[in-house]
Amino acid sequence: VPQPASPDPDRLLPSWRPGATRDAVTAFLDASTSLAPAERLAVFDNDGTLWCERPLYPQLAFFIDQVAEAVGRTPELAQRPEYAALMRHDLAAVAELGIGRVVTAVLELFEGMSADEFAERSQRFLTGTMHPTLRVPYTKAVYQPMLELLAALRSRQFSVVIVSGGGTEFVRSISEQVYGIGTEAVIGTLVGYEYRVDDDGPTLVRTAAVHGDANEGAAKVVNIQQLVGRRPSLAAGNSAGDREMIDWTLAGPGPSLGLLVDHDDAEREMAYESVAGTFETSGSIVDIGRRSGWTVVSMRDDWARIWPD
Amino acid sequence: VPQPASPDPDRLLPSWRPGATRDAVTAFLDASTSLAPAERLAVFDNDGTLWCERPLYPQLAFFIDQVAEAVGRTPELAQRPEYAALMRHDLAAVAELGIGRVVTAVLELFEGMSADEFAERSQRFLTGTMHPTLRVPYTKAVYQPMLELLAALRSRQFSVVIVSGGGTEFVRSISEQVYGIGTEAVIGTLVGYEYRVDDDGPTLVRTAAVHGDANEGAAKVVNIQQLVGRRPSLAAGNSAGDREMIDWTLAGPGPSLGLLVDHDDAEREMAYESVAGTFETSGSIVDIGRRSGWTVVSMRDDWARIWPD
Repeated sequence: VPQPASPDPDRLLPSWRPGATRDAVTAFLDASTSLAPAERLAVFDNDGTLWCERPLYPQLAFFIDQVAEAVGRTPELAQRPEYAALMRHDLAAVAELGIGRVVTAVLELFEGMSADEFAERSQRFLTGTMHPTLRVPYTKAVYQPMLELLAALRSRQFSVVIVSGGGTEFVRSISEQVYGIGTEAVIGTLVGYEYRVDDDGPTLVRTAAVHGDANEGAAKVVNIQQLVGRRPSLAAGNSAGDREMIDWTLAGPGPSLGLLVDHDDAEREMAYESVAGTFETSGSIVDIGRRSGWTVVSMRDDWARIWPD
Repeated sequence: VPQPASPDPDRLLPSWRPGATRDAVTAFLDASTSLAPAERLAVFDNDGTLWCERPLYPQLAFFIDQVAEAVGRTPELAQRPEYAALMRHDLAAVAELGIGRVVTAVLELFEGMSADEFAERSQRFLTGTMHPTLRVPYTKAVYQPMLELLAALRSRQFSVVIVSGGGTEFVRSISEQVYGIGTEAVIGTLVGYEYRVDDDGPTLVRTAAVHGDANEGAAKVVNIQQLVGRRPSLAAGNSAGDREMIDWTLAGPGPSLGLLVDHDDAEREMAYESVAGTFETSGSIVDIGRRSGWTVVSMRDDWARIWPD
């Protein structure tokens, strides 16, 4: 379907306020008509880019919920330090124990489970649990301006891929329903699987081990190449873990756009600053983005509306 | 686009002869209208299933070509036992050295190369080199009946994914041109990548290490789940390395089809038997397939025509 070169931005992106940021987005959409089909690839971080990541990452809230459920069935599990720290929401204790150790302890709860059973659990949590401050289900705590951008990209024949540090299967459980993005277009941190054959036939079950590296930083670039096989022309993120993905996208030869969501809206969401390094404070990622030619999206100034109906 | 329930098989699959095999294929295509969109996933092995794998896997022929080119530039490389064995086409020596060691030696030739540069090399080889017995370029040594099946699946809104033991980037270099399958829909054996930043900006280059397991056997099932996230309803293969993928597909709850290509056509291709285990002779995969309810495709009897124009 041929697209008009310059559709009315008020119709295309109604929740984006007129201004330099929206102009940069629409200029890219206009320029993208010159991209070959294979170059029409847009990658989006999830936590803090497509949906709200505070006060807790939704996946962390899900993990706490699942630990609480397991403790309800088997009370002595509450003695386990990893589970105890999660149930107290004690992120300092989680850091002290080591995030890898805590994640592994949680993944043990799902060991031996099929992909479908895990997807049902996470989908049930995300659709049935209220976000603690926004008072809507997690599946509605998504950014309406980004949903409009996804639609605009799709109507221009872009492949849209989520590239999240979160668990691949966790994000997949709601990606179609919330974003219109199929399971095959979700790249996250992977869990291992084991293929077993018994008298009832083959089964495929989760292990408790993370498969490969966590999908953050340079690993996002490597995973995009390994799993999609092309350089994106649009990348959107909000944190230090998205830096390499955005830099890689903007280093391509054709028209490109790097978006960084700045969480500066204390009234409608929360105002907080992402630091540049995950484990050390080496500067504001917003400052780095501005210096690097990224398009910084002020939630306060650039978005007329944040949440869907 | 709604599809007629039973299109004329002579028009849909003109290179398939009428008979029980074609009936099984068209029965599945008819039944697939009851599948949800996410269930319309078809996976195809590549070597021996979509294209000719004898007398040498095309990737092995490419490796030999690249070794010869490297030796042409640096003659002392011919002393290296892994390269010497390949240049002699001495597969017994390759097996003696260990396939892993030989693959690593070849991958060193591409170390530090970008994905694009590797793709150009493999594409140039596959489009420009004649298959030694068929006397057409490798990109034409593909099975016309399978191209027709891919088209029939696509017109029924199937996602079609190649799941090959070969190198992901090797297959991707021609997947769009030969099969109409984009890079993101190729799952193979992966090579590692390294993300580097220097004064000229970011680069992404190949390492000489295979990333994860070779994509054969149960690894195919694990990779389908990890990279696509759904169980297929159609799986096609030709060798022992496809057994788990076909079994897993047929164990699903809805309509499904498992195809096994039997290379029994000495006149138009080659007659050879795949054994069930990769490293031991534990029976014919065709016998196993028949016992397991797979649809065995006789190239001699079921295909009126093998090669495209």
